[in-house]
Amino acid sequence: MRFLPDELEIEAGEGESILELAARVGITLRGACGGNGTCGRCLVVLRKGAVRDRDGGTVAEAGATVRACRSYPVGAVVVEVPETSRLREHQVLGADVGLTLQAGEEAAEVPVDPLLCRVEVTVDLPETGEVVDDWGRLQSELAGLAGIEVRADLEVLRELPAVLRAEGGAVTVDLAMDGGPAGSVVGVQAGHAAGPVYGAAVDLGTTTVVVELVELDTGRTVGTRGTYNRQAAYGDDVISRIIHAVERSGGRRQLQDAVVETVNGLLVELRLAHGIARDAVRVVVCAGNPTMSHLFLGVDPAHIRLEPYTPAANFWPPCRADEIGLAVHPRAPVHLLPGVASYLGGDVTGGVTACGFGGAGEITLFMDIGTNGEMVLGDGNWLVGCSCSAGPAFEGSGISCGMRATDGAIEQLGVTPDGYEVVYRTIGGGRPVGVCGSGLIAALAVLCCAGVIDRTGRYRTDLETPRLRGRDAGGGFVLAWAAETGHGEDIVLTGSDVQNLLRAKAAVYAGLRNMLAAVGLEQDAIGRILIAGGFGRFLPLRDAITVGMLPDVPLERYGYVGNSSLRGARAALLSGRRLAEIGATARKTTYLELGDGTQFMNEFVSALFIPHTDLGLFPSVREE
Amino acid sequence: MRFLPDELEIEAGEGESILELAARVGITLRGACGGNGTCGRCLVVLRKGAVRDRDGGTVAEAGATVRACRSYPVGAVVVEVPETSRLREHQVLGADVGLTLQAGEEAAEVPVDPLLCRVEVTVDLPETGEVVDDWGRLQSELAGLAGIEVRADLEVLRELPAVLRAEGGAVTVDLAMDGGPAGSVVGVQAGHAAGPVYGAAVDLGTTTVVVELVELDTGRTVGTRGTYNRQAAYGDDVISRIIHAVERSGGRRQLQDAVVETVNGLLVELRLAHGIARDAVRVVVCAGNPTMSHLFLGVDPAHIRLEPYTPAANFWPPCRADEIGLAVHPRAPVHLLPGVASYLGGDVTGGVTACGFGGAGEITLFMDIGTNGEMVLGDGNWLVGCSCSAGPAFEGSGISCGMRATDGAIEQLGVTPDGYEVVYRTIGGGRPVGVCGSGLIAALAVLCCAGVIDRTGRYRTDLETPRLRGRDAGGGFVLAWAAETGHGEDIVLTGSDVQNLLRAKAAVYAGLRNMLAAVGLEQDAIGRILIAGGFGRFLPLRDAITVGMLPDVPLERYGYVGNSSLRGARAALLSGRRLAEIGATARKTTYLELGDGTQFMNEFVSALFIPHTDLGLFPSVREE
Repeated sequence: MRFLPDELEIEAGEGESILELAARVGITLRGACGGNGTCGRCLVVLRKGAVRDRDGGTVAEAGATVRACRSYPVGAVVVEVPETSRLREHQVLGADVGLTLQAGEEAAEVPVDPLLCRVEVTVDLPETGEVVDDWGRLQSELAGLAGIEVRADLEVLRELPAVLRAEGGAVTVDLAMDGGPAGSVVGVQAGHAAGPVYGAAVDLGTTTVVVELVELDTGRTVGTRGTYNRQAAYGDDVISRIIHAVERSGGRRQLQDAVVETVNGLLVELRLAHGIARDAVRVVVCAGNPTMSHLFLGVDPAHIRLEPYTPAANFWPPCRADEIGLAVHPRAPVHLLPGVASYLGGDVTGGVTACGFGGAGEITLFMDIGTNGEMVLGDGNWLVGCSCSAGPAFEGSGISCGMRATDGAIEQLGVTPDGYEVVYRTIGGGRPVGVCGSGLIAALAVLCCAGVIDRTGRYRTDLETPRLRGRDAGGGFVLAWAAETGHGEDIVLTGSDVQNLLRAKAAVYAGLRNMLAAVGLEQDAIGRILIAGGFGRFLPLRDAITVGMLPDVPLERYGYVGNSSLRGARAALLSGRRLAEIGATARKTTYLELGDGTQFMNEFVSALFIPHTDLGLFPSVREE
Repeated sequence: MRFLPDELEIEAGEGESILELAARVGITLRGACGGNGTCGRCLVVLRKGAVRDRDGGTVAEAGATVRACRSYPVGAVVVEVPETSRLREHQVLGADVGLTLQAGEEAAEVPVDPLLCRVEVTVDLPETGEVVDDWGRLQSELAGLAGIEVRADLEVLRELPAVLRAEGGAVTVDLAMDGGPAGSVVGVQAGHAAGPVYGAAVDLGTTTVVVELVELDTGRTVGTRGTYNRQAAYGDDVISRIIHAVERSGGRRQLQDAVVETVNGLLVELRLAHGIARDAVRVVVCAGNPTMSHLFLGVDPAHIRLEPYTPAANFWPPCRADEIGLAVHPRAPVHLLPGVASYLGGDVTGGVTACGFGGAGEITLFMDIGTNGEMVLGDGNWLVGCSCSAGPAFEGSGISCGMRATDGAIEQLGVTPDGYEVVYRTIGGGRPVGVCGSGLIAALAVLCCAGVIDRTGRYRTDLETPRLRGRDAGGGFVLAWAAETGHGEDIVLTGSDVQNLLRAKAAVYAGLRNMLAAVGLEQDAIGRILIAGGFGRFLPLRDAITVGMLPDVPLERYGYVGNSSLRGARAALLSGRRLAEIGATARKTTYLELGDGTQFMNEFVSALFIPHTDLGLFPSVREE
């Protein structure tokens, strides 16, 4: 099996699809449906040989364009992977690095009690007549220093006698803390000339994965890198990945390998760029949603998507890097931030805690809107959280012209009041090829304000502009003409795109209304709204209020907190106390299962208007 | 490389001696000197091919008899291993099984709080609207049951969702305790039909290794097996093994493999004999002297033999079976009993604790005499311990006619008062081939009483008996004539044998005198003397007092406690509290380093008489 133009070869195993083979050689194909053969995004061109379908039927031959997920090589096969079928890695990388570096700077905390400290001690070597064991002496030295009970790793004891004596008792000790009353010696080196020790904070996102490498004794960020999660080949959202993990033989392992390899790739890049040895990275903290956490650890995720939506665990035992194959010191402890429920995970609890949520008793709303809209409301003493399936519309999926926030995406637009002409700005400034989440919110707002769509989201039929092509499924509004675009085709927002966006924004707002109702508060009681995540960064706040997605409170109450998941992981890395606080946040948060509850459905239906059936909730929109 | 008559073949590696190759194919050769080429016990006959010495010189050819430890194959080689060069496994096996079964019966305790319990619980599966994670629910169920904090193994969490639902919430949980306030779930199976769970108590002896398999919920001993420690190929005593581990490249690993394979062999035999699956053995407790503990865990033992004799650790962190390759459940916790100092280990602390030492405040002396004589004196509140290098004389090494306590060993003897005729009893009742430890003590006593040797251990020259062949090195006293013996040669106790025995018994008694002096007590204050270990079983107490090895107190104060090392391991296996008590014993024991101290040397020299220079110490002997 050979892939062009990459010139990569691989031996095909029994029953491996071309999609799986591509993933194994490192080519990440698009695969919104998770390899179910329905999204048609993983197309490849067969150049040599033949392929069959899974049951051995329908053979395609050289020259045919086939879905990689449904095609199995017959003998020696060569395929060409067109650019359009690939996840374009360099683009998201650029975007995310900017984003996360900013977050890193904001959060630049000084390490207080990092999860791993490198300590230099000098132990008196025993003299004649002294009855003392090497470990006992080191242990009491460290216990005096750290004020805690200290355990040893067997690996450390194995070489301790020689290490202790190599430099006359001077040793450098790596002490792993677990946020509790005990620590573990996970490494001992002779002498005091060991270099600095590093930790990795990892944001395990469904779509992108970001790694921040931190020098543990200073808290300095050495570097941050992000890329697409290689699991994307198995589906765009958590549900399709769970299905792949559960229903395909070996699927759980494939997904674990994919995300671990993604993290490892970033770790290696960062280490090489900064000349850091693998063994110098000695602790890892990961923050991810529950599905990502399960898959990263190789835990059965089946019941996350089955009623009553039960995760295997919310709190994870720390494990060792070599148990999951992370490319850091093999005995580095790996912590995962704890979650609350199947759809409210460590990315949120970490973010909420690291953002100084509810400081001074102010009622605060934390929103992380991606495929799921995760929200936490509270004043720090009480916390209520929920997750609403906004669907992938804001990430560009399920929208005919949708795309991620990468080069060529329309991220902002306006409509001229006279002739319905469209002005827009693309990411990177080049020709548009689609519309990303923020552009979609803006389009919805301006088309509604301009009267192109009514409050129910239907296109009007009586406007005199060639851009409007009618309200039926095939119709829509042309945002950019073929002549202007990068791919030479019109960029059209169809009527069903608008309905999808409406459902997405309604889900978010209905979730918020449910939370407010659960605690008996009105939206104006919210003193502060923290917007987190990649989508939030470019979110046009005013437009999002106009369409009724965000609550209509003064704009100055809104703040953007960047990649709060990474911030949470970083905060825990640098402070065991913070890790314990994140645990407390997870325990304290009351999860509101929206599911198909009547109350949620009522709120949802009421929110399927622009901005809402109850205009009283959006006074500033009414005034416009 | 081919071994006859076993017909075993092996590919010789670079620089591997025939001794090492034999160990690899499972043939355990005798090797008192640790492969140094000095003891001449590992002789093999070269049948085909040639061998060279280590430096490539001195080539021996077919027909020659060579020392396996000094011979390296040149090309294809066939050797024959005579019976006399082998450790005879079946014999020690028989002897030890008898011994340890007896000990097992004596100690038949009911499990109180075993280190691992198999618990059947039924967890309510979450219903719609319930926000709870699988592990959280199981955790609180177990915490309620056990009254402790319960952690999970990542491995367990991985399959937990499916396991929990397979039988409607009914699961069988393996809960490992560490004697502290926390436990770990190390296994979960669906349903309540899991069979019993087992633990292994292991006596890691320098010479022999014994494994006792115990059903954990009843405390029933399923079976006990013992065999020679395969490390014997690398030396008879701990010192030669430490030298091998430290000075040979890969030596430490060889010794670890040898003892782990020895334990694994016994485990497999026991499991097959009783139809127990590997994974049903879920916890292991080992008791060994410090050298054996270091080597078993693969820890650098170098400083045990270098002044000031410092072990890497006295207290060992529990490890997992797969970390050292034990053939039980891969995640079974493996505990090693804690020691006190380099020559006072977990075999003694476990033995002392399990024997109910110092009950009712009685001053008790615990003695385990093998190559080292380990002693602990105290009343339970205070404890003082020491170790004296008795040397391997009592185990038959360093004595020309010496042998271990196996078939054909003279274990008891007397001399007729008239004509110096010898009557004896052999183990197994057959023809004698040597004398074991108890026989040697008896010989010393009767030869002294009969006036054949004087109080300084010299043979008299004026006796009219053909058995006495003079007092010089080549001379000695014939205990059995060639016509009576199994090998057709005279069994002779030479003058230097007597001196070796004298030094061995003097070391033991001098150690005891030192301990008594350290706490300001006379020997008559000792209310109870507990004799432990294989040698102790057949020890003729009266003779041992007569020669001045054991203190001259009324015989009824003596008791035999069997394989107390195994008893200690077993007691810990069945009770976390016992494990904690053994730790307390280890911490409480003050170690007396005898070393080359003047006081010890004085006592030693005074004890180089039969029974002693100070006859006042042996009133009952004086009266004889």
